[in-house]
Amino acid sequence: MMSMETPTNVTIKGILGTLMTSVNEEKKVISLGMGDPTAYSCFTANTVVKDSVVQTLESQKFNGYSPTVGLLQTRKAVSEYLSINLPYKLSEDDVYITAGCTQAIEVAISILARPNANILVPKPGFPIYELCAAFRNVEIRRFDLLPDKGWEVDLEAVDALTDENTVAIVIINPGNPCGNVYSYQHLKKIAETAKKHKFLVIADEVYGHLAFRGNPFVPMGVFGSMVPVLTLGSLSKRWLVPGWRLGWLVTTDPNGFFKNAKTVDRLKKYFDICGGPATFIQAAVPRILEDTKEVFFERTLCILKQTSDICCKKIKAIPCLTCPQKPQGAMAVMVKLNVSLLKDISDDIDFCFKLAKEESVIVLPGLTVGLPNWVRITFAAEPSSLEEALDRINSFYQRHSHQKKSQTNPL
Amino acid sequence: MMSMETPTNVTIKGILGTLMTSVNEEKKVISLGMGDPTAYSCFTANTVVKDSVVQTLESQKFNGYSPTVGLLQTRKAVSEYLSINLPYKLSEDDVYITAGCTQAIEVAISILARPNANILVPKPGFPIYELCAAFRNVEIRRFDLLPDKGWEVDLEAVDALTDENTVAIVIINPGNPCGNVYSYQHLKKIAETAKKHKFLVIADEVYGHLAFRGNPFVPMGVFGSMVPVLTLGSLSKRWLVPGWRLGWLVTTDPNGFFKNAKTVDRLKKYFDICGGPATFIQAAVPRILEDTKEVFFERTLCILKQTSDICCKKIKAIPCLTCPQKPQGAMAVMVKLNVSLLKDISDDIDFCFKLAKEESVIVLPGLTVGLPNWVRITFAAEPSSLEEALDRINSFYQRHSHQKKSQTNPL
Repeated sequence: MMSMETPTNVTIKGILGTLMTSVNEEKKVISLGMGDPTAYSCFTANTVVKDSVVQTLESQKFNGYSPTVGLLQTRKAVSEYLSINLPYKLSEDDVYITAGCTQAIEVAISILARPNANILVPKPGFPIYELCAAFRNVEIRRFDLLPDKGWEVDLEAVDALTDENTVAIVIINPGNPCGNVYSYQHLKKIAETAKKHKFLVIADEVYGHLAFRGNPFVPMGVFGSMVPVLTLGSLSKRWLVPGWRLGWLVTTDPNGFFKNAKTVDRLKKYFDICGGPATFIQAAVPRILEDTKEVFFERTLCILKQTSDICCKKIKAIPCLTCPQKPQGAMAVMVKLNVSLLKDISDDIDFCFKLAKEESVIVLPGLTVGLPNWVRITFAAEPSSLEEALDRINSFYQRHSHQKKSQTNPL
Repeated sequence: MMSMETPTNVTIKGILGTLMTSVNEEKKVISLGMGDPTAYSCFTANTVVKDSVVQTLESQKFNGYSPTVGLLQTRKAVSEYLSINLPYKLSEDDVYITAGCTQAIEVAISILARPNANILVPKPGFPIYELCAAFRNVEIRRFDLLPDKGWEVDLEAVDALTDENTVAIVIINPGNPCGNVYSYQHLKKIAETAKKHKFLVIADEVYGHLAFRGNPFVPMGVFGSMVPVLTLGSLSKRWLVPGWRLGWLVTTDPNGFFKNAKTVDRLKKYFDICGGPATFIQAAVPRILEDTKEVFFERTLCILKQTSDICCKKIKAIPCLTCPQKPQGAMAVMVKLNVSLLKDISDDIDFCFKLAKEESVIVLPGLTVGLPNWVRITFAAEPSSLEEALDRINSFYQRHSHQKKSQTNPL
């Protein structure tokens, strides 16, 4: 009966859309709600990236269908790109090209779906996993990420949640919504846990390489010899083109767990029912991966470090908000909301709706990602807009705090 | 248990891929296997189509995410485009933008999936429907298309197949693989049948407007007041850009069957887990629909008429092949194979593999589309290539016919 029901999940885009309808038209809207920085000129894609697609488009050689698993040259280029950071070499057969990371998630969940299967997902997490699982009748079990330990995985919770029907654990690193970047040691422990329980790892690395505080990004695939890994990624974040919908699902799996004929056949057939990305965008990927200069990536990291610093500094000045850890990577941070300091705000949803209405600032209610009374703030924004948004949040706090009331109360 | 099994369906791309590995390297391969004519210069997309996308891409304004149901301006443009041929006006809310017609099929089947549901599909038909249904645990029931009646739907068979769990009938018009173009009267009868049995119509109009023999293309949505219609379409065929993956699913449904809050919510959430087409391609759609000149479409129809004539004429000269009806539209035709005239060919699969090996000509075995001992021939090819391919098929016939044997046998 489940498949008949519409999942009750709240989606990020759903709630952001509703928040947008609540804004005060008199003030310029500043959205820190979504991980899409392309509205800001400091996050414009590199010219070479755009030109590569103009070139394949202008050639009119790529108007036809690609193989449903992706163009061979694209699969090869992605396998070579990912192999740079691995202790073994991937082949083009490991790579399946998808319509953005969203479709990679959808394929991963659908391929693993079987009666009674469950998948472990982080809390806070990314709602698309839960929505996909609901549509595919896969049970979701949530393990905590620990805010006081750099949002590391609560591995004891993972042990407790696992049973014989657990097929996979989802690890998002660099992390959305927390901004964590996991150490080699922590990822190794995750791999050991997965190996012990005989489930595989879905490594969501859509924010791969977006680590800007010194601790390096380590792909989960480094432990692919220990445990089979499905690596999900895309051009979206590192190349700043989320709307291009060019992603990949990769079997990072030197022992060939995914390489048996039945699994490959199932994956290939599943891709036959997916509409993948445009052939001419796929055809541009080899040049994009080859020719994007390191300085472009460095520039993005530099801006993200700066904006995350601004974000944390401004948050410190707002008593009702606490940031347990400076973000290390990705584009957003989870911030704890202390509603007891506010006289007329009941929870994170109420906070976000009133903030949108009064200040035209959009931030995401933590409930959407599994943590009520937190908010997710995207810091991938123009520094001046970010500062103004956080100043407006501070004004909002001042107006709604108990403190203000007592201050105006003459002693 | 079903969801664990990989569907056993043969896919068109799967079998064409295998056929390709069998070709004789000494002869230039001519593929009449797939509905993708973009390899031939006479089927190159119009410059305005390409330029529209170059423009949105160059602007760098459409690198970000679109709403998962599609950009508003794109939905609006498609609703206006489709409304031209309908007795009522669609709105942008009726239109959902998809990654090609393939994803539109996937969404339609998934949205209708519920325990015990069955969907009626044509035989011969398009295998993606059956593959999708298998992945979503929806039962498929096949009704015959009648070769001697212009491949019309066998409506008595439809009556016999229907039960209380029948949720929809799939109508592909203009038809793939048969090249049929249904009359207003026949479509009306289909709508009446659907209304009588209270199921809806999935109208696959990916070949919409590709009707080249005088009988006009009538969209199923014309009967949307009688029965709810899900219209599927794309830029792929009419604009000759199948690899761009820009399609639509449209609720052609003036009575608002699909407009209740629950259905809309389910559709919207489903789109949240789909990777749609690139935002910049979506953004180009209004200009593409507005600015593509009628002469471009007329030219395509003219070439298709010519190539389908060549195809039928050449087939007439090959005794083992019979074409029950000249194609009226789309890009392919079903041709009956008489294996009894061939000395060493067991069936359509054998025919296609030996033909690929000996003549480097690819045609699709009818088994793939549900009709063993037929073949599907795509006539959307350069006239000279098409002629050569069919001449090679004739040589192949001459070599393998009993007749030849008797001719060489001195009396």
